[in-house]
Amino acid sequence: MPDILMGVGKAGLKESGKPDILVVVLPYPCVSSFLFTDNYFKAGSVIYSERVAKRTEKVSALVINSGNANCGTGEEGIMHAELMARQVAQKLDIKHDEVLVFSTGIIGKPLPIDRVLKAIDDACSILEPLDLERASEAISTTDSFPKFDFVKKEQLETFGFAKGAGMIAPSMATMLAFVFTKADVDYETLRQIHRDVNERTFNSITVDGCESTNDSFGLIALGEVQANPEDVKAQVFEVTENLAKKIVEDGEGATKVIKVTVKRATLEMKAREIARAVANSLLVKTAMYGRDPNWGRIAAAAGSTEFPIDPFSMKIYIGGHLLYDGKPHPKAGSMAKRYLEEEKEIEVVIDLNEGRNSWTYYSSDIGYEYVRINAEYHT
Amino acid sequence: MPDILMGVGKAGLKESGKPDILVVVLPYPCVSSFLFTDNYFKAGSVIYSERVAKRTEKVSALVINSGNANCGTGEEGIMHAELMARQVAQKLDIKHDEVLVFSTGIIGKPLPIDRVLKAIDDACSILEPLDLERASEAISTTDSFPKFDFVKKEQLETFGFAKGAGMIAPSMATMLAFVFTKADVDYETLRQIHRDVNERTFNSITVDGCESTNDSFGLIALGEVQANPEDVKAQVFEVTENLAKKIVEDGEGATKVIKVTVKRATLEMKAREIARAVANSLLVKTAMYGRDPNWGRIAAAAGSTEFPIDPFSMKIYIGGHLLYDGKPHPKAGSMAKRYLEEEKEIEVVIDLNEGRNSWTYYSSDIGYEYVRINAEYHT
Repeated sequence: MPDILMGVGKAGLKESGKPDILVVVLPYPCVSSFLFTDNYFKAGSVIYSERVAKRTEKVSALVINSGNANCGTGEEGIMHAELMARQVAQKLDIKHDEVLVFSTGIIGKPLPIDRVLKAIDDACSILEPLDLERASEAISTTDSFPKFDFVKKEQLETFGFAKGAGMIAPSMATMLAFVFTKADVDYETLRQIHRDVNERTFNSITVDGCESTNDSFGLIALGEVQANPEDVKAQVFEVTENLAKKIVEDGEGATKVIKVTVKRATLEMKAREIARAVANSLLVKTAMYGRDPNWGRIAAAAGSTEFPIDPFSMKIYIGGHLLYDGKPHPKAGSMAKRYLEEEKEIEVVIDLNEGRNSWTYYSSDIGYEYVRINAEYHT
Repeated sequence: MPDILMGVGKAGLKESGKPDILVVVLPYPCVSSFLFTDNYFKAGSVIYSERVAKRTEKVSALVINSGNANCGTGEEGIMHAELMARQVAQKLDIKHDEVLVFSTGIIGKPLPIDRVLKAIDDACSILEPLDLERASEAISTTDSFPKFDFVKKEQLETFGFAKGAGMIAPSMATMLAFVFTKADVDYETLRQIHRDVNERTFNSITVDGCESTNDSFGLIALGEVQANPEDVKAQVFEVTENLAKKIVEDGEGATKVIKVTVKRATLEMKAREIARAVANSLLVKTAMYGRDPNWGRIAAAAGSTEFPIDPFSMKIYIGGHLLYDGKPHPKAGSMAKRYLEEEKEIEVVIDLNEGRNSWTYYSSDIGYEYVRINAEYHT
């Protein structure tokens, strides 16, 4: 572990009374890239941090509050984010425009800013080395387990932590992830790695197809190790994919992780759109919950995008069992059903039999527990 | 009622043993327009009828089977549809390429074609005047009530029947609707009316966002009454909108109809896309099921399309109660909550405050019953 420090505080934003403020302090200003939600109904913290990130390639600290999304809170929300950054900067004697701010939690409630600033003070007063597990816990909301990962190959290390339990809970959507690589790379290279990895990981998972107002993903290069950009990318991908899979696993009420792969498509975008349509299909998700190898729903979802498919040459597999290849294979159904009953990670493959491109989406099933969590919560 | 005749038969396609074949016989070849699903995984019956409809502007009869979608059944499925059309033509002494074929029911099982042809014979042998309620029942699958409507203004009459209970049940998606107007209009006029009405009705409803392999909507002009095209369109719209609303009401497990209106948008397409995003949002649907006036989820869904919204000038109302207008109005929440508890049809309005275009989508809530119906069914 490098000399990244962290501090936690409590502003009383969570009913549980657990830590809800995390400050992460880098050893020096580090080349960093940030990606934010595409949602136009953005949180004040996102609007603020997006603006700061545009102006600087180097970041010195992050401050994250959980339990309140600081979203739908008007202009005051943007001011509150700036106050949080300035508080960190003042306490640590760094530049306030090298501090980024993130929030996750309930939408539409103003931050109790005095308590938040006080908790930031506390967090900055007791800094200790970054502990990935505790960091993940400090930023979690409805998560049922902390999410972090660490990989090392020779001198090169990459590690990160995240939160997110689907896009789901009680107006508490949001995925936050922060990944750190020891590599020494310039901003342009880091940015390209960041975008590419994000497309195949966080942009290829879905729990309920709903896009959060607060999603943010940061990639920070510590600049300590010389490395080939391809190796850096591979390691960042590995850590990020693991974080993404943990988020899907923790989708509210999920009993299965569903891995949907579309292969042999003419275009990468086609493979991706079809994988997304199948991964997002409520009919597919409920069928998986019911352990039903319902290839008809998979086929109908695959046919619903703007990209033509040929129903007579496509093939559909569940767990390696061929269920359809232009005509149904009813006998494979019982084996596929047993597979669905026994396995925790379900592999669905749609082979378009027409080209060389493929894409994988990770999804989860949807059952009664999803409805309970999302219907019985009251604002 | 004009001299439209119908006959029903039983091919044993439904477990209930109820009628599953409907033949509708027009008094003479009538100018007709048909719209089919955009899904590329189309049923054999859709592939066949789309081809026939392209070649003819006039139709003499319709044959519909329920209980089996004739989908995913390979080339044989297309042949079976043709055999059904030829059987009707032969029995009624009409041209087989003026007969259209429709199917709804389970995907991936071959039609028992001998039994189907026999039932078509039976249906053609006992023709009687069209009864909208019985016609709807004969084509229904998981519907919990028949769907039909009739309007008359002076000499002009329009009427129709439909089936569809969401897009939902057990590989049994599909909406079918047939609307008849007494008006005398040419094909081009009828086609334009048909497309326009369809966009604002069946293309503006959603239960689970899943698109069927078999959806079909026919509009038939009996040519008996001279009328202004605008009056014809208004009447066709009225009947079709009523059929569309009945389908949403019957969404599996639905306890509420949710009417989502986006108003004062710069573009019609923008209003439509945002209305669709909100109407399709699983978080919004589960919140409505839970009687929770969760405007944050509505805002997040509205912000998730490719069209920019301004979070600081948009307004969100539930049942006329202003919940957000750049900042939250927490006091309106309890009134909106009472409204959600008491009303069966819920009005959600998103006022973008920027232009002149609006669009309305009809949706339904999603609760435990939806999961039960769709997870506990087994193929």
